[in-house]
Amino acid sequence: MDYEKPLFFRVMQYAERADRDVIDMVSGNPDWEPPEALREGLREYADLPVSEYQYPPSDGLRELREEIASRRNVPIESVIVTNGTGEANYLAMAAALDRDAGEEVVLTDPVYPYYPGKTGMLGGEPVYAPVEEDGRLDPDAVRERANEDTAAIVVNSPNNPTGAVYGEDTVEALVEIAEECDAILVSDEVYDHFDHSGRFASALSVDSEHRAVTTGFSKSMAITGLRVGYTVLPPELAEPARTRHMLVNVAGSRPAQHAVLRALRETDPDYYEANRAMLEERIDAFTDALDAAGAEYTRPDGAFYVLARFDGFPGTMENVERLIDEAGVAGMPGDAFGESREDWLRFALVTPRAQEAADRLASFFN
Amino acid sequence: MDYEKPLFFRVMQYAERADRDVIDMVSGNPDWEPPEALREGLREYADLPVSEYQYPPSDGLRELREEIASRRNVPIESVIVTNGTGEANYLAMAAALDRDAGEEVVLTDPVYPYYPGKTGMLGGEPVYAPVEEDGRLDPDAVRERANEDTAAIVVNSPNNPTGAVYGEDTVEALVEIAEECDAILVSDEVYDHFDHSGRFASALSVDSEHRAVTTGFSKSMAITGLRVGYTVLPPELAEPARTRHMLVNVAGSRPAQHAVLRALRETDPDYYEANRAMLEERIDAFTDALDAAGAEYTRPDGAFYVLARFDGFPGTMENVERLIDEAGVAGMPGDAFGESREDWLRFALVTPRAQEAADRLASFFN
Repeated sequence: MDYEKPLFFRVMQYAERADRDVIDMVSGNPDWEPPEALREGLREYADLPVSEYQYPPSDGLRELREEIASRRNVPIESVIVTNGTGEANYLAMAAALDRDAGEEVVLTDPVYPYYPGKTGMLGGEPVYAPVEEDGRLDPDAVRERANEDTAAIVVNSPNNPTGAVYGEDTVEALVEIAEECDAILVSDEVYDHFDHSGRFASALSVDSEHRAVTTGFSKSMAITGLRVGYTVLPPELAEPARTRHMLVNVAGSRPAQHAVLRALRETDPDYYEANRAMLEERIDAFTDALDAAGAEYTRPDGAFYVLARFDGFPGTMENVERLIDEAGVAGMPGDAFGESREDWLRFALVTPRAQEAADRLASFFN
Repeated sequence: MDYEKPLFFRVMQYAERADRDVIDMVSGNPDWEPPEALREGLREYADLPVSEYQYPPSDGLRELREEIASRRNVPIESVIVTNGTGEANYLAMAAALDRDAGEEVVLTDPVYPYYPGKTGMLGGEPVYAPVEEDGRLDPDAVRERANEDTAAIVVNSPNNPTGAVYGEDTVEALVEIAEECDAILVSDEVYDHFDHSGRFASALSVDSEHRAVTTGFSKSMAITGLRVGYTVLPPELAEPARTRHMLVNVAGSRPAQHAVLRALRETDPDYYEANRAMLEERIDAFTDALDAAGAEYTRPDGAFYVLARFDGFPGTMENVERLIDEAGVAGMPGDAFGESREDWLRFALVTPRAQEAADRLASFFN
C-alpha cells in the first residue's frame, strides 16, 4: 500500500494531462469558502508589530490553546497545537509507541493510508481490524487483535474513506480495550463537523488516561493549506509529545494560528451548518445518480467521501485512468485504502459538479 | 544538557517576573522589521481564491522551490521547503541516520542544543569535537572523531553561540571528512545573511553527494514565527526526506510560503545590508562596553550573539538570575551550549538597547 499523497498526485497528474474536461473528486480538499473571519485574521496579522512575527509558544499561541481548551472542556496543559492534524497524529502515535508498552498498532481495514505510513516510520507494527461492509466498526474485531503488545489503536470517525460515524457505545468500548491492553486509543476526529447522522461521539466524552484525540481546522474551515491542528493528550503523553514537537518543528506557523483563533471566536455556527447542508445535498445528488448507474455504495453518515463499486470494474489505478479518459471523472483507487476495498472507488464530494459526475458515471456504465 | 527552548522559557519567565526593567538578550528572535514585501504577500494572500487555501505541494510551493533552486544554483529536485530550519535539520539528520551507515553524529562543543536533542530522538549517538576558544573549528578535531560509525557531521556557520564563520578551507575539509567516512555533512547556514567577516563559505560551494545544507528565512527576514526553511539534499537523501516530511507534516503553511516567495522576489539587497550594518553597530557598542566591564569575549565574525566571560562569575542559571535582578540584563547560561562554555554567558543582540545593556553590565562588574 502506498501513501495517499503520492498516489493522489499520480491521479491528479493523470487527470490534468487528460485531453478532456475532468471532474476532480480525488483529494480531501474542501472547495468552499473559509470563514470570512479567517481572511480577516490574516489581513489583521499583516499589520501586527514585529513581536508578532517572532516564535509563538512551541505548543501554540496561548489564546488559541485557551480557546480550544475552553471549547473542548479539557485542561489547557493537555492541548498541543500542531502543524495540521497530520502532525497531531504523528505526535500521538509516537508518544504511544515510546511508552515501551508494546509495538503493535491496531488499524482498521480500510484505512487512511497515512496511519500505516506513520506506524512504519515510528518502528511500529500495523495490525488490521476489518470493518463491516457498511463501514461500521465492531469493537470485538479490535478486541480480538489487541493484546499486551498493542501500543495504540488508531481510529478515524467520521471516517475517511467509509463515511462511517462511530457512536458513543463504540467509542466507550474502544477506550475500554485500550485500558485493558495498556494501549492508547488515538481518535482522529478531523471530520467531526461533518456528522450527517447526529450520532457522532468524540473520544473526549470518555475520561481516560488511555485516549488521545487528534483533530484540526483543515476540513471544518476549508483550510487544508494553513496547517493548524491539535491534539488533546493525557498528562503522561503530553510531555514527550511537546518535546518531540519542539525537536521536529520548533513551533507552528503564526499567521495561520492567528487567523484560526479569530475565525474560532467570530464564526457563527451557521457557517458550519451551511457547509454540512451543502454536502448533504451533494451526497443526495451523487448517490441518486449512483443508483441510476447501478452502483453499489454506502451512503456516508459523515465526512464527504463515497465508496462505490461498479460490477466488473475493480478499483485499480488502471480503471481510475479509464474513468478519467472515458467518463471525465477522477476518483481514488480503492486499493489505496487496503485490501478490503480493492474493488471500490472513492469519490470526494469536494466539487459543486458532484451530480454531473455521477451522471457521467451513469452514462459510462449504462 | 537541556534543550535551548525550555531553558530559554525559564530565563524569559524569570525576567518577566523581575521587579525591574530588564533588557532581553535571551532569544534569537530578530527585533527588526520583516521586508515590506513580506507583509504585502500576507495581505495579498488574504484575498486569494479558495484553491490557494488548499494543500500546497508537500515539498513546498512550486514557485518558491524554483526561486530557491535558481538563487542557490541547485536542481529543483534537491530542494524541500520545510517548517523552518528546525524541520530542515531534523529531516537531513534523519535521512543521514536512516542510511544504515553508522549511528554516531559528530557535533561541536559548544553546540546549538537542538542538535543533540534531535540526535537522541533519532536514535543517534552524539560525539563532540571541541572548537578553539575563539570559535574556530579545526577540521582535524572533527577528523579525529569521525570514523565508519559516523552517520553525520552537523555544523553551524555563522555559528550560534560562538559567532565563528567557517571559511572555504574548513568547509572543503569537512565535506572531505564526510566523504571519507561515508557520512553526511549537515551544514546549518541559517545565519548566512549575517556574515560580518566576508569569509563565509556555503557548503553548497562544494559539490558532493555527502553534504546537505539547511537554512531558512527566519533570521534573514526576521520572521522566526512564520516557519519557512528549506534543505538542499543529494538525490539519495531527498527521497526519504520527502517521505518523512509528508508523514510528519503533510506540508508547510501556505500563507507563510506565499509571503516568503513575494519577499524573496521583491526585497532589495539593501534590506539585508542595512540589518547587517545595524547589527555590526550593536556589536561595536556592546563589545566596547564589555571592554569597559573587564569581560573576556570574542568579537563575532557572524550571526548576532556574543559569548562573554566575567571573572569569578560562571555562566550558571543562578548567575543569569542575579544579572536579571541586579543588573537588569537577561542572557543565556553558557552551560546550555555544552561543558566547554560553562563559564560563559551568551547575549543575543536582538535589542536596540545592546549598548545600554553592556553599560549596565559594566556598572555591575565594576
